[in-house]
Amino acid sequence: MKEIIAVVRMGKVSATKRALVEAGVAGFTASKVLGRGKLVKDPAVIEARKQELLALNKSKDKQEAELLIDTFLNGVRLFPRRLFNVIAHDEDVPRIVQAIMAVNRTDNQVGDGKIFVLPLNDAIRVRTGETGDSAIW
Amino acid sequence: MKEIIAVVRMGKVSATKRALVEAGVAGFTASKVLGRGKLVKDPAVIEARKQELLALNKSKDKQEAELLIDTFLNGVRLFPRRLFNVIAHDEDVPRIVQAIMAVNRTDNQVGDGKIFVLPLNDAIRVRTGETGDSAIW
Amino acid sequence: MKEIIAVVRMGKVSATKRALVEAGVAGFTASKVLGRGKLVKDPAVIEARKQELLALNKSKDKQEAELLIDTFLNGVRLFPRRLFNVIAHDEDVPRIVQAIMAVNRTDNQVGDGKIFVLPLNDAIRVRTGETGDSAIW
Repeated sequence: MKEIIAVVRMGKVSATKRALVEAGVAGFTASKVLGRGKLVKDPAVIEARKQELLALNKSKDKQEAELLIDTFLNGVRLFPRRLFNVIAHDEDVPRIVQAIMAVNRTDNQVGDGKIFVLPLNDAIRVRTGETGDSAIW
Repeated sequence: MKEIIAVVRMGKVSATKRALVEAGVAGFTASKVLGRGKLVKDPAVIEARKQELLALNKSKDKQEAELLIDTFLNGVRLFPRRLFNVIAHDEDVPRIVQAIMAVNRTDNQVGDGKIFVLPLNDAIRVRTGETGDSAIW
Repeated sequence: MKEIIAVVRMGKVSATKRALVEAGVAGFTASKVLGRGKLVKDPAVIEARKQELLALNKSKDKQEAELLIDTFLNGVRLFPRRLFNVIAHDEDVPRIVQAIMAVNRTDNQVGDGKIFVLPLNDAIRVRTGETGDSAIW
Protein backbone atom coordinates (compact mmCIF):
# COMPACT_ATOMS: atom_id res chain seq x y z
CA MET A 1 0.00 0.00 0.00
CA LYS A 2 1.24 3.45 -0.88
CA GLU A 3 0.12 7.06 -0.67
CA ILE A 4 0.76 9.02 -3.85
CA ILE A 5 0.91 12.80 -3.40
CA ALA A 6 0.75 14.94 -6.54
CA VAL A 7 1.14 18.72 -6.64
CA VAL A 8 -0.41 20.03 -9.87
CA ARG A 9 -1.20 23.35 -11.56
CA MET A 10 -4.70 24.77 -10.91
CA GLY A 11 -5.40 24.52 -14.65
CA LYS A 12 -4.75 20.76 -14.51
CA VAL A 13 -7.16 19.86 -11.71
CA SER A 14 -9.98 18.53 -13.90
CA ALA A 15 -7.63 16.62 -16.18
CA THR A 16 -5.92 15.08 -13.16
CA LYS A 17 -9.23 14.04 -11.61
CA ARG A 18 -10.29 12.39 -14.88
CA ALA A 19 -6.92 10.67 -15.21
CA LEU A 20 -7.23 9.28 -11.67
CA VAL A 21 -10.75 8.01 -12.24
CA GLU A 22 -9.76 6.45 -15.56
CA ALA A 23 -6.77 4.83 -13.86
CA GLY A 24 -9.30 3.26 -11.51
CA VAL A 25 -7.82 4.65 -8.31
CA ALA A 26 -9.30 3.44 -5.05
CA GLY A 27 -10.01 6.87 -3.67
CA PHE A 28 -8.41 10.25 -3.44
CA THR A 29 -8.69 13.69 -1.88
CA ALA A 30 -7.80 17.08 -3.31
CA SER A 31 -6.90 20.21 -1.36
CA LYS A 32 -5.67 23.74 -1.97
CA VAL A 33 -2.05 24.50 -1.22
CA LEU A 34 0.50 27.18 -1.97
CA GLY A 35 3.82 25.92 -3.12
CA ARG A 36 7.00 26.27 -5.03
CA GLY A 37 9.37 23.77 -6.57
CA LYS A 38 13.03 23.62 -7.28
CA LEU A 39 14.97 26.43 -5.68
CA VAL A 40 18.14 27.38 -7.50
CA LYS A 41 21.31 27.14 -5.38
CA ASP A 42 24.18 27.11 -7.86
CA PRO A 43 25.34 30.74 -8.46
CA ALA A 44 26.37 29.86 -12.04
CA VAL A 45 22.89 28.54 -12.78
CA ILE A 46 21.33 31.63 -11.17
CA GLU A 47 23.54 33.91 -13.31
CA ALA A 48 22.70 32.00 -16.51
CA ARG A 49 18.99 32.14 -15.70
CA LYS A 50 19.28 35.87 -14.92
CA GLN A 51 20.85 36.60 -18.32
CA GLU A 52 18.16 34.53 -20.02
CA LEU A 53 15.37 36.37 -18.18
CA LEU A 54 17.03 39.76 -18.79
CA ALA A 55 17.05 39.04 -22.52
CA LEU A 56 13.33 38.39 -22.31
CA ASN A 57 12.83 41.66 -20.43
CA LYS A 58 14.62 44.04 -22.78
CA SER A 59 11.89 46.62 -22.59
CA LYS A 60 12.24 46.94 -18.86
CA ASP A 61 14.70 48.96 -16.87
CA LYS A 62 17.64 46.65 -16.17
CA GLN A 63 17.62 47.31 -12.43
CA GLU A 64 13.90 46.63 -12.19
CA ALA A 65 14.26 43.46 -14.23
CA GLU A 66 17.05 42.24 -11.97
CA LEU A 67 14.87 42.86 -8.94
CA LEU A 68 12.03 40.84 -10.47
CA ILE A 69 14.42 38.04 -11.29
CA ASP A 70 15.90 38.05 -7.80
CA THR A 71 12.41 37.83 -6.33
CA PHE A 72 11.62 34.90 -8.57
CA LEU A 73 14.87 33.03 -8.02
CA ASN A 74 15.54 33.70 -4.36
CA GLY A 75 12.26 34.99 -3.05
CA VAL A 76 9.55 33.33 -1.07
CA ARG A 77 6.72 33.75 -3.55
CA LEU A 78 4.40 30.76 -3.49
CA PHE A 79 2.04 29.73 -6.27
CA PRO A 80 -1.46 28.26 -5.86
CA ARG A 81 -1.46 24.56 -6.55
CA ARG A 82 -3.80 21.63 -5.99
CA LEU A 83 -2.53 18.72 -3.96
CA PHE A 84 -3.94 15.25 -4.61
CA ASN A 85 -3.59 12.42 -2.09
CA VAL A 86 -4.18 9.06 -3.73
CA ILE A 87 -4.21 5.66 -2.00
CA ALA A 88 -2.92 2.81 -4.15
CA HIS A 89 -1.88 -0.81 -4.12
CA ASP A 90 1.88 -1.22 -4.60
CA GLU A 91 1.51 -2.74 -8.07
CA ASP A 92 -0.70 0.13 -9.29
CA VAL A 93 1.73 2.92 -8.34
CA PRO A 94 3.71 3.10 -11.62
CA ARG A 95 0.51 3.15 -13.69
CA ILE A 96 -1.07 5.91 -11.58
CA VAL A 97 2.14 7.98 -11.59
CA GLN A 98 2.26 7.69 -15.38
CA ALA A 99 -1.39 8.73 -15.66
CA ILE A 100 -0.77 11.84 -13.56
CA MET A 101 2.38 12.74 -15.51
CA ALA A 102 0.66 12.27 -18.89
CA VAL A 103 -1.90 15.00 -18.21
CA ASN A 104 0.37 17.39 -16.29
CA ARG A 105 3.27 17.88 -18.66
CA THR A 106 3.33 21.27 -20.38
CA ASP A 107 5.88 23.09 -22.50
CA ASN A 108 6.82 25.36 -19.60
CA GLN A 109 10.33 25.18 -18.21
CA VAL A 110 9.18 24.95 -14.61
CA GLY A 111 6.02 24.45 -12.59
CA ASP A 112 4.70 21.12 -13.89
CA GLY A 113 4.66 19.79 -10.37
CA LYS A 114 5.96 16.83 -8.44
CA ILE A 115 4.73 13.44 -7.43
CA PHE A 116 5.72 11.73 -4.18
CA VAL A 117 5.26 8.13 -3.09
CA LEU A 118 4.98 7.41 0.62
CA PRO A 119 4.77 4.10 2.47
CA LEU A 120 1.46 3.26 4.11
CA ASN A 121 1.22 0.86 7.05
CA ASP A 122 -2.49 0.26 6.92
CA ALA A 123 -5.83 1.41 5.56
CA ILE A 124 -9.18 0.93 7.28
CA ARG A 125 -12.63 1.27 5.69
CA VAL A 126 -14.72 2.91 8.41
CA ARG A 127 -18.04 1.40 7.32
CA THR A 128 -16.95 -2.24 7.43
CA GLY A 129 -13.78 -2.21 9.50
CA GLU A 130 -11.91 -3.95 6.67
CA THR A 131 -8.16 -3.39 6.90
CA GLY A 132 -5.13 -3.67 4.64
CA ASP A 133 -5.37 -4.15 0.89
CA SER A 134 -9.02 -5.23 1.09
CA ALA A 135 -9.87 -1.78 2.49
CA ILE A 136 -8.64 -0.21 -0.72
CA TRP A 137 -10.76 -2.06 -3.26
CA MET B 1 5.34 6.69 16.13
CA LYS B 2 2.59 6.82 13.54
CA GLU B 3 0.54 9.38 11.65
CA ILE B 4 -3.15 8.52 11.46
CA ILE B 5 -5.06 10.18 8.63
CA ALA B 6 -8.85 10.07 8.77
CA VAL B 7 -11.19 11.33 6.05
CA VAL B 8 -14.62 11.97 7.59
CA ARG B 9 -18.01 13.42 6.62
CA MET B 10 -18.50 17.14 7.33
CA GLY B 11 -21.34 16.21 9.68
CA LYS B 12 -18.95 14.12 11.78
CA VAL B 13 -16.28 16.76 12.41
CA SER B 14 -17.34 17.69 15.95
CA ALA B 15 -17.92 14.07 16.98
CA THR B 16 -14.50 13.12 15.61
CA LYS B 17 -12.80 16.00 17.44
CA ARG B 18 -14.45 14.95 20.69
CA ALA B 19 -13.53 11.31 20.12
CA LEU B 20 -9.89 12.27 19.54
CA VAL B 21 -9.73 14.42 22.66
CA GLU B 22 -11.42 11.69 24.74
CA ALA B 23 -8.94 9.18 23.32
CA GLY B 24 -6.22 11.46 24.69
CA VAL B 25 -4.44 12.03 21.40
CA ALA B 26 -1.18 13.94 21.51
CA GLY B 27 -2.20 16.52 18.94
CA PHE B 28 -3.99 16.74 15.65
CA THR B 29 -4.81 19.02 12.76
CA ALA B 30 -7.95 19.21 10.64
CA SER B 31 -8.24 20.54 7.09
CA LYS B 32 -10.79 20.85 4.31
CA VAL B 33 -10.48 18.46 1.39
CA LEU B 34 -12.59 17.25 -1.49
CA GLY B 35 -12.59 13.54 -2.00
CA ARG B 36 -14.17 10.36 -3.13
CA GLY B 37 -13.78 6.75 -2.12
CA LYS B 38 -14.06 3.43 -3.82
CA LEU B 39 -14.31 3.70 -7.59
CA VAL B 40 -16.06 0.83 -9.34
CA LYS B 41 -13.93 -0.86 -12.02
CA ASP B 42 -15.62 -4.20 -12.70
CA PRO B 43 -18.15 -3.75 -15.58
CA ALA B 44 -20.36 -6.49 -14.09
CA VAL B 45 -20.49 -4.66 -10.77
CA ILE B 46 -21.23 -1.39 -12.56
CA GLU B 47 -24.08 -3.03 -14.50
CA ALA B 48 -25.53 -4.59 -11.34
CA ARG B 49 -25.34 -1.27 -9.50
CA LYS B 50 -26.96 0.49 -12.50
CA GLN B 51 -29.92 -1.90 -12.44
CA GLU B 52 -30.26 -1.46 -8.70
CA LEU B 53 -30.21 2.33 -8.99
CA LEU B 54 -32.59 2.28 -11.98
CA ALA B 55 -35.07 0.29 -9.90
CA LEU B 56 -34.86 3.00 -7.26
CA ASN B 57 -35.41 5.66 -9.94
CA LYS B 58 -38.55 4.27 -11.55
CA SER B 59 -40.26 7.62 -11.62
CA LYS B 60 -37.47 9.15 -13.69
CA ASP B 61 -36.94 8.99 -17.40
CA LYS B 62 -34.71 5.98 -18.01
CA GLN B 63 -32.15 7.90 -20.08
CA GLU B 64 -31.88 10.64 -17.46
CA ALA B 65 -31.51 8.08 -14.69
CA GLU B 66 -28.75 6.30 -16.61
CA LEU B 67 -26.93 9.59 -17.04
CA LEU B 68 -27.11 10.29 -13.33
CA ILE B 69 -25.86 6.81 -12.56
CA ASP B 70 -22.99 7.13 -15.02
CA THR B 71 -21.97 10.41 -13.44
CA PHE B 72 -22.00 8.80 -10.03
CA LEU B 73 -20.18 5.63 -11.02
CA ASN B 74 -17.65 6.92 -13.53
CA GLY B 75 -17.61 10.65 -12.97
CA VAL B 76 -15.17 12.84 -11.22
CA ARG B 77 -17.51 14.40 -8.70
CA LEU B 78 -15.78 15.04 -5.41
CA PHE B 79 -17.47 15.48 -2.05
CA PRO B 80 -16.41 17.87 0.74
CA ARG B 81 -14.74 16.02 3.56
CA ARG B 82 -12.64 16.88 6.58
CA LEU B 83 -9.21 15.36 6.86
CA PHE B 84 -7.70 14.78 10.31
CA ASN B 85 -3.98 14.21 10.82
CA VAL B 86 -3.29 12.63 14.19
CA ILE B 87 0.12 11.86 15.66
CA ALA B 88 0.19 8.77 17.87
CA HIS B 89 2.43 6.37 19.71
CA ASP B 90 2.49 2.94 18.09
CA GLU B 91 0.64 1.29 20.95
CA ASP B 92 -2.19 3.86 20.86
CA VAL B 93 -3.00 3.45 17.15
CA PRO B 94 -5.63 0.66 17.46
CA ARG B 95 -7.46 2.53 20.23
CA ILE B 96 -7.52 5.81 18.27
CA VAL B 97 -8.62 4.07 15.06
CA GLN B 98 -11.46 2.40 16.99
CA ALA B 99 -12.47 5.75 18.49
CA ILE B 100 -12.65 7.37 15.04
CA MET B 101 -14.60 4.44 13.59
CA ALA B 102 -17.08 4.38 16.48
CA VAL B 103 -18.30 7.92 15.78
CA ASN B 104 -18.11 7.80 11.97
CA ARG B 105 -20.16 4.73 11.12
CA THR B 106 -23.55 5.51 9.63
CA ASP B 107 -26.24 3.41 7.97
CA ASN B 108 -25.24 4.72 4.53
CA GLN B 109 -23.86 2.26 2.00
CA VAL B 110 -20.90 4.45 1.09
CA GLY B 111 -19.14 7.58 2.27
CA ASP B 112 -18.25 6.74 5.88
CA GLY B 113 -14.62 7.53 5.11
CA LYS B 114 -11.27 5.87 5.44
CA ILE B 115 -8.47 5.82 7.95
CA PHE B 116 -4.81 5.47 6.99
CA VAL B 117 -1.79 4.71 9.16
CA LEU B 118 1.60 6.01 8.04
CA PRO B 119 5.05 5.44 9.49
CA LEU B 120 6.72 8.40 11.16
CA ASN B 121 10.49 8.67 11.50
CA ASP B 122 10.57 11.42 14.06
CA ALA B 123 8.65 14.16 15.84
CA ILE B 124 10.15 17.35 17.23
CA ARG B 125 8.52 19.75 19.71
CA VAL B 126 9.60 23.18 18.50
CA ARG B 127 9.51 24.87 21.91
CA THR B 128 11.82 22.44 23.68
CA GLY B 129 13.60 20.62 20.90
CA GLU B 130 12.47 17.28 22.36
CA THR B 131 12.49 14.53 19.76
CA GLY B 132 11.00 11.08 19.31
CA ASP B 133 8.29 9.67 21.55
CA SER B 134 8.93 12.29 24.22
CA ALA B 135 7.94 14.99 21.73
CA ILE B 136 4.48 13.46 21.51
CA TRP B 137 3.46 13.52 25.17
CA MET C 1 14.40 11.20 0.92
CA LYS C 2 12.11 12.51 3.63
CA GLU C 3 8.98 14.60 3.98
CA ILE C 4 9.20 17.19 6.74
CA ILE C 5 5.84 18.43 8.04
CA ALA C 6 5.85 21.55 10.19
CA VAL C 7 2.82 23.01 11.97
CA VAL C 8 3.50 26.68 12.74
CA ARG C 9 1.70 29.74 14.14
CA MET C 10 0.01 32.01 11.56
CA GLY C 11 2.32 34.83 12.68
CA LYS C 12 5.37 32.73 11.74
CA VAL C 13 4.39 31.90 8.15
CA SER C 14 6.61 34.49 6.44
CA ALA C 15 9.58 33.78 8.69
CA THR C 16 9.21 30.06 8.06
CA LYS C 17 9.03 30.57 4.27
CA ARG C 18 12.18 32.69 4.37
CA ALA C 19 13.96 30.16 6.58
CA LEU C 20 13.08 27.35 4.16
CA VAL C 21 14.29 29.29 1.13
CA GLU C 22 17.49 30.27 2.94
CA ALA C 23 18.00 26.64 3.89
CA GLY C 24 17.84 25.89 0.17
CA VAL C 25 14.94 23.45 0.35
CA ALA C 26 14.02 21.64 -2.84
CA GLY C 27 10.39 22.63 -2.76
CA PHE C 28 7.54 22.96 -0.32
CA THR C 29 3.82 23.56 -0.01
CA ALA C 30 1.88 25.44 2.64
CA SER C 31 -1.76 24.94 3.59
CA LYS C 32 -4.26 26.13 6.17
CA VAL C 33 -5.15 23.77 8.98
CA LEU C 34 -6.81 23.90 12.35
CA GLY C 35 -4.99 22.12 15.09
CA ARG C 36 -4.05 21.63 18.64
CA GLY C 37 -1.05 20.15 20.36
CA LYS C 38 -0.40 18.34 23.57
CA LEU C 39 -3.56 17.29 25.35
CA VAL C 40 -3.26 16.99 29.09
CA LYS C 41 -4.27 13.58 30.47
CA ASP C 42 -2.84 13.45 33.97
CA PRO C 43 -5.49 14.77 36.45
CA ALA C 44 -2.75 16.08 38.74
CA VAL C 45 -1.22 18.10 35.89
CA ILE C 46 -4.67 19.39 34.92
CA GLU C 47 -5.34 20.47 38.52
CA ALA C 48 -1.94 22.20 38.78
CA ARG C 49 -2.51 24.00 35.47
CA LYS C 50 -6.03 25.01 36.62
CA GLN C 51 -4.68 26.60 39.79
CA GLU C 52 -2.01 28.39 37.79
CA LEU C 53 -4.55 29.72 35.29
CA LEU C 54 -6.99 30.66 38.07
CA ALA C 55 -4.26 32.75 39.67
CA LEU C 56 -3.86 34.57 36.39
CA ASN C 57 -7.62 35.13 36.19
CA LYS C 58 -8.19 36.70 39.59
CA SER C 59 -10.41 39.40 38.21
CA LYS C 60 -12.84 36.90 36.76
CA ASP C 61 -15.60 35.07 38.50
CA LYS C 62 -14.08 31.80 39.71
CA GLN C 63 -16.79 29.64 38.14
CA GLU C 64 -16.41 31.39 34.79
CA ALA C 65 -12.63 31.08 34.94
CA GLU C 66 -12.90 27.36 35.68
CA LEU C 67 -15.20 26.93 32.71
CA LEU C 68 -12.71 28.69 30.42
CA ILE C 69 -9.91 26.56 31.75
CA ASP C 70 -11.88 23.35 31.29
CA THR C 71 -12.61 24.33 27.70
CA PHE C 72 -8.95 24.94 27.10
CA LEU C 73 -7.67 21.82 28.80
CA ASN C 74 -10.31 19.27 27.87
CA GLY C 75 -12.22 20.90 25.09
CA VAL C 76 -12.04 20.50 21.38
CA ARG C 77 -11.08 24.03 20.46
CA LEU C 78 -8.73 24.11 17.50
CA PHE C 79 -6.41 26.96 16.57
CA PRO C 80 -5.59 28.16 13.04
CA ARG C 81 -2.15 27.03 12.01
CA ARG C 82 -0.17 26.80 8.79
CA LEU C 83 1.14 23.41 7.75
CA PHE C 84 4.30 23.20 5.65
CA ASN C 85 5.22 20.09 3.68
CA VAL C 86 8.88 20.10 2.75
CA ILE C 87 10.69 17.50 0.63
CA ALA C 88 14.32 16.94 1.62
CA HIS C 89 17.33 14.74 1.08
CA ASP C 90 18.10 12.62 4.15
CA GLU C 91 21.30 14.51 4.94
CA ASP C 92 19.53 17.90 4.84
CA VAL C 93 16.80 17.00 7.35
CA PRO C 94 18.61 18.08 10.57
CA ARG C 95 19.59 21.42 9.01
CA ILE C 96 16.06 22.14 7.79
CA VAL C 97 14.51 21.11 11.10
CA GLN C 98 16.91 23.46 12.92
CA ALA C 99 16.04 26.28 10.51
CA ILE C 100 12.31 25.84 11.17
CA MET C 101 12.84 25.65 14.93
CA ALA C 102 15.05 28.74 14.99
CA VAL C 103 12.30 31.01 13.65
CA ASN C 104 9.35 29.38 15.42
CA ARG C 105 10.42 29.45 19.05
CA THR C 106 8.60 32.02 21.16
CA ASP C 107 8.42 32.70 24.87
CA ASN C 108 4.96 31.19 25.08
CA GLN C 109 4.48 28.07 27.16
CA VAL C 110 2.57 26.22 24.46
CA GLY C 111 1.71 26.53 20.79
CA ASP C 112 5.12 26.79 19.13
CA GLY C 113 4.21 23.88 16.91
CA LYS C 114 5.60 20.51 15.97
CA ILE C 115 7.77 19.11 13.22
CA PHE C 116 7.38 15.60 11.85
CA VAL C 117 9.71 13.59 9.62
CA LEU C 118 8.18 10.94 7.36
CA PRO C 119 9.84 8.40 5.08
CA LEU C 120 9.45 8.92 1.35
CA ASN C 121 9.75 6.06 -1.13
CA ASP C 122 10.14 8.14 -4.25
CA ALA C 123 9.83 11.56 -5.84
CA ILE C 124 9.08 12.21 -9.51
CA ARG C 125 9.55 15.50 -11.37
CA VAL C 126 6.56 15.64 -13.73
CA ARG C 127 8.27 17.72 -16.41
CA THR C 128 11.26 15.43 -16.94
CA GLY C 129 10.21 12.15 -15.41
CA GLU C 130 13.32 12.17 -13.21
CA THR C 131 12.89 10.00 -10.12
CA GLY C 132 14.56 9.58 -6.75
CA ASP C 133 17.06 12.04 -5.33
CA SER C 134 17.66 13.63 -8.73
CA ALA C 135 13.99 14.68 -8.81
CA ILE C 136 14.58 16.79 -5.73
CA TRP C 137 17.43 18.97 -6.96
